[in-house]
Amino acid sequence: MATRHHDLTDPAAAETAGPVTGEALAGYLRAQATEFLRALRLHRETGGPGNGAGGSVDAARALRRSARRITGSLHTYRPLLDADWSEEIRPELAWLSGTLALEHAYEARLERLLTALQRLSGAAVPTLPEPLTGATAARAGTTLKSRPAHTTLAPSGAPAPAAAPTPTAAPAPPGTGPHPTAPPDRGNLTVGAAKAGALLERQLTLARTRAHSTALQALGSSRFHAVADKVALLASEVPLTAGAATTDLRPLAAAAEERLADAVAALPLVTAGHPYNAEALVHGLSPDPAPHPQDAPWHQVRLLLRLHRYAREVLHAGTEPADVRLLPAGQALDRHRDAAEAAAAAAQAARTPRIAPATAYALGVLHADQRHEVEAARYAFQRCWQKDRQERVPTS
Amino acid sequence: MATRHHDLTDPAAAETAGPVTGEALAGYLRAQATEFLRALRLHRETGGPGNGAGGSVDAARALRRSARRITGSLHTYRPLLDADWSEEIRPELAWLSGTLALEHAYEARLERLLTALQRLSGAAVPTLPEPLTGATAARAGTTLKSRPAHTTLAPSGAPAPAAAPTPTAAPAPPGTGPHPTAPPDRGNLTVGAAKAGALLERQLTLARTRAHSTALQALGSSRFHAVADKVALLASEVPLTAGAATTDLRPLAAAAEERLADAVAALPLVTAGHPYNAEALVHGLSPDPAPHPQDAPWHQVRLLLRLHRYAREVLHAGTEPADVRLLPAGQALDRHRDAAEAAAAAAQAARTPRIAPATAYALGVLHADQRHEVEAARYAFQRCWQKDRQERVPTS
Repeated sequence: MATRHHDLTDPAAAETAGPVTGEALAGYLRAQATEFLRALRLHRETGGPGNGAGGSVDAARALRRSARRITGSLHTYRPLLDADWSEEIRPELAWLSGTLALEHAYEARLERLLTALQRLSGAAVPTLPEPLTGATAARAGTTLKSRPAHTTLAPSGAPAPAAAPTPTAAPAPPGTGPHPTAPPDRGNLTVGAAKAGALLERQLTLARTRAHSTALQALGSSRFHAVADKVALLASEVPLTAGAATTDLRPLAAAAEERLADAVAALPLVTAGHPYNAEALVHGLSPDPAPHPQDAPWHQVRLLLRLHRYAREVLHAGTEPADVRLLPAGQALDRHRDAAEAAAAAAQAARTPRIAPATAYALGVLHADQRHEVEAARYAFQRCWQKDRQERVPTS
Repeated sequence: MATRHHDLTDPAAAETAGPVTGEALAGYLRAQATEFLRALRLHRETGGPGNGAGGSVDAARALRRSARRITGSLHTYRPLLDADWSEEIRPELAWLSGTLALEHAYEARLERLLTALQRLSGAAVPTLPEPLTGATAARAGTTLKSRPAHTTLAPSGAPAPAAAPTPTAAPAPPGTGPHPTAPPDRGNLTVGAAKAGALLERQLTLARTRAHSTALQALGSSRFHAVADKVALLASEVPLTAGAATTDLRPLAAAAEERLADAVAALPLVTAGHPYNAEALVHGLSPDPAPHPQDAPWHQVRLLLRLHRYAREVLHAGTEPADVRLLPAGQALDRHRDAAEAAAAAAQAARTPRIAPATAYALGVLHADQRHEVEAARYAFQRCWQKDRQERVPTS
């Protein structure tokens, strides 16, 4: 029910001859189902999730990627698909995708928080490795080394000239040569920061281990095998409705786009566009331990933006240059979500009984830092969204 | 030794006929000395510093204001003044000004920190007064009420639509009517925030009380009477050098301007111009308890900007419309200093032995919040400085 029409669809789409019908949807779903099965095979070959092998991590990511695209398309193009089948497979794929995502999420959260602790301690410039002192640092070093390098997890949107490198993927400064066994530099952390890091590591590693077990259990369950069988069927035959072959997909894609535009219009973008608006930390010390209610609309836009992207992929299968346009906006919202969850994890850790005041202080600084990351992500989203619209005015 | 010439001086200055000589300086110094004596009289009449009476606070501010202008002018236009006399009175005026400033600084710092704690607790919207619970809140309320309202102390530069009002000067929402005895709303502070507020209040009130005693002592000292006598003499006769009557002041003012331009050029303005650069908090958890070394160049620019302003006042006595241009830059740097000192006070309070983890956590959040205020102030300075230069290009 948007009052204004936000034309986010690539104008080039209108130029393709004729309507895009159910056959395009079927082709897309078959391709994604094939992708899912390929990832599943790779996943089994590399020995299950979270064993630290890069292949397995990639496979899990590919599994989630195709699962998200299938569920997203089933949602947007619901009228073209057999309703019973669709209602049955959608929650199952969402369950699978969510279960597989958790382990990676805890891992990424820990990495984000440890990187922030390093940055907040002024350990921005990678120096020659210093000898680690204390069991905590040694433990942390070992754990960090066993973790695969996810360079994409570092906060990427902020133009921070002295941004801390990720502990696992710190580029060696020129001239120092490779240090293959160099542990992350924790020599100059305060006691509070080191203890906060150790506490977060303990809590998030525990959560990750649990998520790992849950994922392993899920992948061995009959529930999972039922989903896999359904996707295998989907790879060969898509249960379209009778009229799907002549139904135009574009109004449904436009509706998804409008839902996105409505949700974006409801965001406090004017505030977000003023840097340092101090909004994201407004409830930083609120007695309410629930997630910040102000984050919810942004999370919702993140999901709707993803649905819009997938809906567009169906329309422009193979020819998707315009997808690049939505990418930075989506990345900003991913960063928003990651920072919000990391901030909550820091606040949660600070509620651990019997921690030292110095630990709690460091966690407070860390929480505020991540909430400012949340605010920075909103600013980044506002910028690329407005820029996007401004640039598109002359072409429409 | 600036390589480029930053023409900050009002072009109108060049249009005034003839050189500005020592007589202008003498007139300025006489006027400031008279101002000083007037403020001193008012101060004695209103009963000494910091007794809570608005008149006394104003008088102390006026005293410092004229003392700063006299010392600043003596510094910039040194060659025109009797060297012995100048070297003697300058440190004495600086001592007086510094001694009088301390009490107000502690008061403003406490107010800034308590306001921030309110904001961080989500107590942004002034509601109907809630009953206060606990001795802490009651104590705090009483202390706050006894403090005069300094509306100018609230962070003013940030475009925060939901910015918290100062506890003492909260505008009543329309329709609720006046609440002359309404205590500040602390009903929804967490235990940690309330305890952090009480701790800061205790520590900064103690510091303020000590500063008050020191100021009282200073004003009764023979050292003070010697300064007052010197200023009284200055009000009638300025000890100029023999050649001062024919010496042009403008090269000396230009030199002060150049020192400012050089110091600004050394600032990391490119970084500061990128919002959310996360620079100001880089040493937020550093083991070094010293003030952030990165702040020093900004504090230096703040002083040089002030000297430049005073140097200009001497040149354009009475006709100073261009002063308005430098005002926002100076305000941003004042805010930078205030936030930096408030952040340090929060960090200092967190080192108090035997505090609860929740208190330390709140102080950590508060510290990070104030360091982000520091970063926001740098951004604000960069913006008005660049804007200033851009707008001036067509006129030069």
